Parts: sequence; C-alpha cells; structure tokens
Amino acid sequence: MSDSKQKKTRGFSAKKNYYNRAAQKSADLEIIKDNSIPKKAKQSVNKNQNKKVTGHSQRVTKPAKSVKIIPLGGLGEIGKNITLYEYDDEMILVDCGMSFPDEETPGIDVVIPDFSYLLECKDKIKGLFITHGHEDHIGGIPYLLRQFNVPIYATRLTVALISEKLKEHKLLNEAKLNVVKDGSTISLGNFSVEFIHVNHSIPDAVGFAITTPAGIIVQTGDFKIDTTPIDGKMIDLARFGELGKKGVLALLADSTNAERPGYTPSERLVGNSLETLFSKAEGHRIIVATFSSNIHRIQQIIDQAVKCDRKVAVSGRSMLNVVKVAAELGYLKVPEGVLIEIETIKNYPTEKIVVVTTGSQGEPLSALHRIAFSEHRQVEIIPGDMFIISATPIPGNEKTVSKVVNELLKCGANVVYEKMYDVHVSGHACQEELKTMLGIVKPKYFIPVHGEQKHLYKHSQLAETMGMSKDNIIIVGNGSVVELSNKHVYTSATVPAGRVLVDGLGVGDVGSIVLRDRKHLAEGGIIVVTIVVDSTTREVLSRPEIVSRGFVFVKESEELMLQIENAVYDIIEGCYRGNVRDWNIYRTRIKDGVAKFLYNKTHRSPMVLPVIVEI
Amino acid sequence: MSDSKQKKTRGFSAKKNYYNRAAQKSADLEIIKDNSIPKKAKQSVNKNQNKKVTGHSQRVTKPAKSVKIIPLGGLGEIGKNITLYEYDDEMILVDCGMSFPDEETPGIDVVIPDFSYLLECKDKIKGLFITHGHEDHIGGIPYLLRQFNVPIYATRLTVALISEKLKEHKLLNEAKLNVVKDGSTISLGNFSVEFIHVNHSIPDAVGFAITTPAGIIVQTGDFKIDTTPIDGKMIDLARFGELGKKGVLALLADSTNAERPGYTPSERLVGNSLETLFSKAEGHRIIVATFSSNIHRIQQIIDQAVKCDRKVAVSGRSMLNVVKVAAELGYLKVPEGVLIEIETIKNYPTEKIVVVTTGSQGEPLSALHRIAFSEHRQVEIIPGDMFIISATPIPGNEKTVSKVVNELLKCGANVVYEKMYDVHVSGHACQEELKTMLGIVKPKYFIPVHGEQKHLYKHSQLAETMGMSKDNIIIVGNGSVVELSNKHVYTSATVPAGRVLVDGLGVGDVGSIVLRDRKHLAEGGIIVVTIVVDSTTREVLSRPEIVSRGFVFVKESEELMLQIENAVYDIIEGCYRGNVRDWNIYRTRIKDGVAKFLYNKTHRSPMVLPVIVEI
Repeated sequence: MSDSKQKKTRGFSAKKNYYNRAAQKSADLEIIKDNSIPKKAKQSVNKNQNKKVTGHSQRVTKPAKSVKIIPLGGLGEIGKNITLYEYDDEMILVDCGMSFPDEETPGIDVVIPDFSYLLECKDKIKGLFITHGHEDHIGGIPYLLRQFNVPIYATRLTVALISEKLKEHKLLNEAKLNVVKDGSTISLGNFSVEFIHVNHSIPDAVGFAITTPAGIIVQTGDFKIDTTPIDGKMIDLARFGELGKKGVLALLADSTNAERPGYTPSERLVGNSLETLFSKAEGHRIIVATFSSNIHRIQQIIDQAVKCDRKVAVSGRSMLNVVKVAAELGYLKVPEGVLIEIETIKNYPTEKIVVVTTGSQGEPLSALHRIAFSEHRQVEIIPGDMFIISATPIPGNEKTVSKVVNELLKCGANVVYEKMYDVHVSGHACQEELKTMLGIVKPKYFIPVHGEQKHLYKHSQLAETMGMSKDNIIIVGNGSVVELSNKHVYTSATVPAGRVLVDGLGVGDVGSIVLRDRKHLAEGGIIVVTIVVDSTTREVLSRPEIVSRGFVFVKESEELMLQIENAVYDIIEGCYRGNVRDWNIYRTRIKDGVAKFLYNKTHRSPMVLPVIVEI
Repeated sequence: MSDSKQKKTRGFSAKKNYYNRAAQKSADLEIIKDNSIPKKAKQSVNKNQNKKVTGHSQRVTKPAKSVKIIPLGGLGEIGKNITLYEYDDEMILVDCGMSFPDEETPGIDVVIPDFSYLLECKDKIKGLFITHGHEDHIGGIPYLLRQFNVPIYATRLTVALISEKLKEHKLLNEAKLNVVKDGSTISLGNFSVEFIHVNHSIPDAVGFAITTPAGIIVQTGDFKIDTTPIDGKMIDLARFGELGKKGVLALLADSTNAERPGYTPSERLVGNSLETLFSKAEGHRIIVATFSSNIHRIQQIIDQAVKCDRKVAVSGRSMLNVVKVAAELGYLKVPEGVLIEIETIKNYPTEKIVVVTTGSQGEPLSALHRIAFSEHRQVEIIPGDMFIISATPIPGNEKTVSKVVNELLKCGANVVYEKMYDVHVSGHACQEELKTMLGIVKPKYFIPVHGEQKHLYKHSQLAETMGMSKDNIIIVGNGSVVELSNKHVYTSATVPAGRVLVDGLGVGDVGSIVLRDRKHLAEGGIIVVTIVVDSTTREVLSRPEIVSRGFVFVKESEELMLQIENAVYDIIEGCYRGNVRDWNIYRTRIKDGVAKFLYNKTHRSPMVLPVIVEI
C-alpha cells in the first residue's frame, strides 16, 4: 500500500541491535546509542551527508527563516495527536495518534487524522518521531504507513509497541523503525531532535527538543513530574532547564490536566494503597483492573503479590500482550514462578491469587466486564473477592464503569474504585507542574497542545499568571500553520486537518451523511415502503409492502402497519390521478406523506425509505 | 383515560384555597392547614369515617400485622423513584418519578416505572404522596393518572409543578391535588403520613413519617442538611429526632451522595461565589445557566443582579415556566422592574444584563447550547461575556457540557464551570449528613433507597460503621416485597417492577427487540434487498434492488452495490436451482449470504433486510 518508498536515512552512526525476535525477523530497525550522536545540531547536520542536508547546512549561515509548526490533530480535542514541523522544504512529524469514537460517531471503530496534507508533502517528510507508546500518539501509524513509508524514531518500549501494532496490520516488514535512547539526538537535514526523558503513565516516554535554524522548539509530549517514579528515572528537568538557559523559541506542552490545581501524585502512592488493600483482602482473591500500558502500575501489583506470596494471572488480550513484551524487554520484573496461566487459577487456593485484567473503563468486551456479567470462562466471582479498579473513568465512560461496579457488588464482591484509597494517579502534569515546565523552559512563544479548547485556555491562563504576554501565547486549532522566528509569530495559512473515520476495513468512507442516517435510524428506526411498477405501462402492480425495523414491535402493531399501507395507497392513487409519471415524485410524496402520517399518529420520526421496483 | 374513578378521601377537616388561577379553574385541590390534622395517627384513623378505616382502626388493637414496603423504582438506579406501602389491604404510594434515557435506549424520550402491579391493586391505593417537585419524583404522574386517578398529596410548590405538568398532558381537570403544609399529617385508613421539612435543591421538599399499626416508617425523600438555607428554613432535624426517640421501625433514606465523604456545603456558598464573580464581571454581560427548579439558586442570582444594578432576563422554556410559577407563589422574590423580557435585552447596556438560562447539562436543544452555537435569537456572544455554569454534569453528561464550554471559549467568552469558584453545591446529603440522619432516627431496620447498587452499598456500610447489624440493613431491588414488623424483616415476594419506555405518544411499545434493532441500525446502517416474484408461477421477476442507508456513501460505492446485487443474484439462482419454493428460505439465505459477503469484504455488519414482493 505504501505508494512512496523513501530510502532509509542513515545520517547517524549506529549499531544494529534488536529488541525482540519479532522485530528481528521483520522490521528495518536501528538502535541508536546514547553517545553515537553529536550533541550539537549543526555538527550533526554536517555529518548527514545526503544532498539536501548539505544544501541546508549552508543556508544556516544565512539569516534564519521562520519555522512552521502545523498541528494536524490533538488541538481542541483529546486524542489523535500529530504535529508537523517545517523548515524550508524539509519536514518532520511528531506523533501520529488516533482517538476513540463517541456518541456522535456510531459504529465507528477508530478516528484518525486526515493525512491529505501529509500526502501532498510526503517527499519533504524526513521522519516521524514518537513521544511514547499510547494509542493517542501511535494509533494512526499503520494508516499513515499505508500511505507512505516514513522512518520512525522512538524509544525502545515505544518501538516494541508500534511493532506489535504493525504486525497486526501486516506492515512490520516494510516499516523503518529506529530505536533511540533518551538523551540522544537524531539529526535529519535542518532538524535535530533530542530525546528527553519524561515521566508518564507508560515507561520510556520522552519529550523532544527540536533544534532548527530558526531556534529550539520544545515539545513535552504527555508528561508529569514524578520525583519518586517506579523505575527511579525522574523526568530530566535539568535538561529542560539547560535548554531554557540556552533560549527556547517555542514550547508545546501537554494541557490535559491544565484544569487541575496542585501536583499529580507520584505513581508510588498507588503502591502504598495497593499494600493496604492487599492486606485487607487477606483470605480472599484479588482482581485488579488497570490500563495494560501502565507497566509501572502492573509492576507494583506484581510486587505486592510477591510480598503476599500470591500468584499472578493475566486476563485480557492487550494486557497479555503488553505484559509479554514488557517482561521480555525488562521493563517488567517478574520473579520466576509468579506468573501463571489464567486457565490454571483453579489449581491454587483463591486467597493465593491475583488476577490482573483489562476493562478498567468498563468496556463491554473487556475481561473485567465479562467477569462482572458472568461471561468469563476462567474467572467466576466468589463472594468476598476484592476487585480494585485502578483507573479513573475517562470522560464519557463514567456510566459503563458504574455498571460494572454495580454488577460486581450485586455478586457479593468488594469493589474499590475511583477515588477510594488512591488506587489511581494521573499520568499528566497538573497546574503546578505545568508552571514548573513553563518556568524552566522560559519559551519566547507558548503553544498549549493536547487538549480541548478549555484545557488549552486554562493552560494559557497559567502562562499569563507567570507573566507571559498574551501576544506570545498561541491557541490555535488543528490545521493552523504557525510561523515562528525570533522576530515574529503568526498564523499564515490553514491546511486540511479534519478527522477520518475508520469503520471495519473502510477508512474514510463513512462521512457526515452516513453518520446522520445512522443517528436517524437509531432514534426512530426505519419504515421501508416497497411498490412494484411496470416499467413500460408505468402501472403500479402491487399493493404497497410495508416493512419496519426499530420502530414498533410489528406483531403488536398490525393495525398501524395496515394504516401505513392505506396511507401509501392513497398517496399512489393521488399521484396516479394527478397524472404524475416521474417515479421520483412518487418517492418524495410517499416519504413525506408517510413521515407526516406517522408523526401525527405517534409523535415519532422514523426514517421512511420508499423503494420502487420497475419490472 | 382514568379507568377507575375513586371517590375523594375527605378524612380530614380542611379549608378550600387555591394556589393560582390555573389550578383554581381546574384541579380538584385541597389545602390542608398545619393544625387541621390530629398529630397522632390513631386519632386520625378514627376520624376518617369511611368504612375501611373504621374496620382497620378496630384491628389496631389486635396484634399488629407486618407492613409491606415495595419499592417499584429508584433502587439500583438513579431516577424513577416510586415506593408502595401496604398494610392489610390498604396501600399508599410515595413519589412517582421518571428517569432519562441513555445510550442503551436510543430514541426514547422518557423512562417510567412499570405500573402493572399498581393496576392490579388500584382499588387498594388510597393516595400518592410526593416528597418534592423534581422529575425523578413527579415525572411519572401523568402516565399513572392515565391508568387510574389517585388523590395526590404534596406541598404547595410541588403541587404547582405537578399542575403545570398535568396541564401539558391535559389531565389537570380530573386530577385530585391536595396541598399539604410541612408539619401536617394526612391520615388515610391505616396510614398517617406526616410531612417533615427537609433541605434540597428545590424549595418545599419534605420527608415522610408514615405511621402504621406495625410501626413508624421514615422516608427522607431527597435531602441535605443545610444549616443556612436561603429561605431560612433548616431541615426539621428535631422532628426526625423526636420520631427516633419514639421508635422508628424502618428508615428509607436518600443514597445519592453516599460515596462522598464529609458534608454538602450550604446553598449560601454559591451566593458568595456569585458575588465574587459578579464583581469580576464588571463591565461585561453575565449569563448564568442552572437547573430551572433550583429556585434558591435563581433567587441568589437575582439578589446579586439587584445589588449590581443589573436587569435579569430569562431564557429557556422550563426556566420561564418555573420563574413565573415561583414568583406568583412567592417562592421567588423579585423586586419590581428587575425582570425584563429576553427580547428587550438589546435596549440595555450589555454590562447591565444578567441572563438566567437552562442548559447547564449541555442539552442540545437548550438555551445555553443555542447561545454557544450561535443559534439563539436574542443572545449572541460578545467577547468578554461571563458565562457561569452553575451545575455539575450529571454522570453521562460530561461530554455535552464540555462541548458547550469549549464553544463558548472559542467565541471569546469567559466561562466558569464545574468546580471553579464553588458555583454549584449538591442537593443531596453526603456521608456525615447521612450518618446524622441514621443517628437521630435510630431505625430498627434500614433500607437505603434512591441510588445505584454502589450507592446503596456505600450507604449500608455507613450504617454498619455506626454499629447497625447487617441483618437489619436491607438492600433490595425494584419489585421486592419487604415485610417488616417489630419482630422480623424478610423479602416475601417479587412483583413486576421494570421500566416502561416512552417514545413519542407510545408508552411501552418500544421493547428489547426494537431497541436491539435500533442499536444494530446505528452501528452499521441497513441494506434493503428487494426482489419481486410471481405469486402463482413463483418466478423471480426482477433483478434484485439494493438500497442502503447509514452503511456507505452510495455515490462513492457503486461498485460495492453492484457486487451485492450479484451476490444476491447468485443466492437466488442457487435457491431456484435447488428447487426451493419457500420464500422464507429465500429471505434467510439472502440475509445470511449478504451479511457474510459484506463482512468479508468490509468487516462491517449492517442490518440486511430482504423484502420479497409477490405480485
């Protein structure tokens, strides 16, 4: 499917290495070591001995042009983060996420960014840099790679998670995946991208310092400041500070929690809560639901299980997948003999079991949901079971989570959820952390990203309280082309940056008309009115056939169906007498007439679909 | 529609009086004065000189039977609260609410309780007692009155709000509405119902002390403990305490906020916040959205407007309605000249205007939503406008509220929402208040009501922490018949107590099959396959006609439509060759064959509807 095969950019010395067997066999994978990249962008640019790079490195001495920042997703919304950077005629991409459907997009599986602008400039795009392995930052990659094959740069775990995804989409073989260590810098033409470690609810997350001839741009990615992270690696605030001292042209920072005052607690807090709860649950089975990508959370669950001499079984496809990958790569440390297959839990005393499962958002097909509604093959609720839902409902999921909680309680389980016992902490920075980032990076311009309008607005207000001028804070929407230099900032154009809906195998074939029809069908159901006509004599050959779905229970509404039939008959007769010969007029009159009849009769508005068959 | 016209129960001395002209003209309305009812139930029973009552008052001397409590709604759910009490062969009802549809009930307008058990025993039901005028306590009344006409007892404002509702449903003329003051007692046969003032987010809310020969049952209704309420009338805790001292058989208490620790703040806190915000908004227009029934909130908005010398305009049908009724009845005190018509706001300087509007839940048709999306005739956003959303999103509404907030911000407005500046307080008691109620009523048995399973469970845990025995706490579901006496408590039976869906004029004609079809249609749309056959020769007379809605955009999928047509053609040919004569087999094969073809081709599952027309 990739209609443009770029040559691999080898503008850095690197040693080949492979993170696991799957990748080893298939992906075109580079591992870049910490010290392999010159720290300074200019040097690096000079070392990149392809034509374009040389061309540009000469231009660096000329007065710097402005750099363009084009967010193509993630602004005015939560999800599908993707940002394009352009300097001269070179481009790099940061992240390529997806978002989830909502009640406005019934039947849709996944929402991805509109790649049409990227396709226009695909030959300019030198690389795709990924901050971390969450779906809202990597979920769009398979759909992008089907359009054109761009080299991808990310940390080790992120590459592993992308590989799993590409394997599913049968795209791993052609993908150009490069593993980059935090602290390293990748130079591609005019751009040098430095990977800076940040804390988040997934390991191996980074922010980027993107050096261009126009200046340094810092994009934080999703981050929080965790002074006591589980892997001991605190966010590299010092490096952000160094960059700030050097002078940062623009900061693009995560706005997700911009409405929340104070600090996000450390992930370690959850460990303390788990300790308390595990001791409360003595003598009972423990089932913990959390996000499969939150490997530090899973580590803490395993640590507590080990302490209490319990075995750990994993349920849910994505949880199994991530635990496997994370354990193989060493992100998850599991002592020998602790992990058991979910099928074998019946061989152990219940009080010696911890089940780690997906479904913390109450998703109807998830393992936790199946457990709650007695549809799980291996886990049947035993009264006294301790369920811990180690997550907060994402806005929109409150009701589905409540349903699961209610059902578990009805079955006699103990359930710990939401704010009880601090069983969850956010992965995003709250206001004081956001201010810390702003305060040490000290950007000339600030572009709040990753958030709905209200989050961006709150984030900009934080910057203002710190003394930043309103003129230097840029709130834009997806598709805005922001041009920046040391002298000015302005929005110079707008490029296409909508959303593309994925439904089954169809990418982009469900648009506003199909969605409008789906919503209409959901609200009122459908009445299909079929008449058969003679194509030559233009005679109507049958009584109207009325079929309905989602409108009323037909067996109990035979009279109404008969009345509709009569109403249609009258309309046809009217047309016939009026000498109407155009079947489209028949169609319109049947549609309007039946709709009106039904509204008067029932105060409902089903879709009326007239079908005229000519024979 | 009322198929049983009961005679009005006149078991109390009362003076006729009318709360407003509408009711005066139509409703059969009684006003019961404070001192008109004997305090003690037994006396009252004796004064009720109808046959049944006399019969029962004799029985009081015999050993007391058990009283039955039958919750028919409001347990395991938020909304449609309704509880039936039965002693011997007499019954009373408390509340008759509705609930709102959710994503599981597309196209549904309102959800009401299943009244089938009430219909079975309609001759036993002496009266319907209403705690307060919120939809989840009164919304089912019109649907009940259409089944049978039961006398209704409620406080003045509640009767006014019920009257407005019945007027809309053209049921006010026959309704038997009785205004009861808090502190009064209504005696009907074996039951004496005392109205006890409580605080809630609507004025004139009461709880009930229901005295029966088996003992006293206290039902709190929705309540909170507000020590500084806007109308100066604190909840009558002393009376609840008196009853506790006397001995209460059972307490049914509001569990809505049982998950929340601490105390719900006083409504007065919102007034303080409004004061701060009104002074911040100097020079700008102010638009406040809140629940129309929260009259004390509206009072505080008006008070602040008066202080700042602003005029107040009201927008939104229900807001206009409630403000009119509440002002007429004196629940809302508005100085002359403060209220202006929304059409006239353009005649005043913008900084002299406060608009009070509906839409605090982001409802798509509400005034606030229309303002945000530039669809409001009189209110167009001016940058700098201060919007205050004085409400918390009800679970499930978070996204719709966010949408409105984001849109307002995009238009340059300032928006205060959710927990910012304490612009909202709950109307329900938090844990410490719930414990206070439990502690002073000291019931023998406790039945947590008004809440999902998790709320009931939390509430029961609170009772346990106060030393109550688990055996005396009864968590049941809708339809459980709980029999109580001083000696025992048990669930003796279950009666029908489901939900009935209202869609347009149809009550109960949308069931699980229709809903399942609506969900299927919403997810995948529909493909209608029509073939015409000769009813005598059983020949197929046409090529299959394929029409789709909500599946793919047809103009761009002509090839797929052609492929479906060919697939159907093959199926028909197969049937024909296989000598299949039964059209139902044709139907099944077309349905399954097309579904399979489309799933393989697109990974989607639209509804396939084969229509075979015989001519």
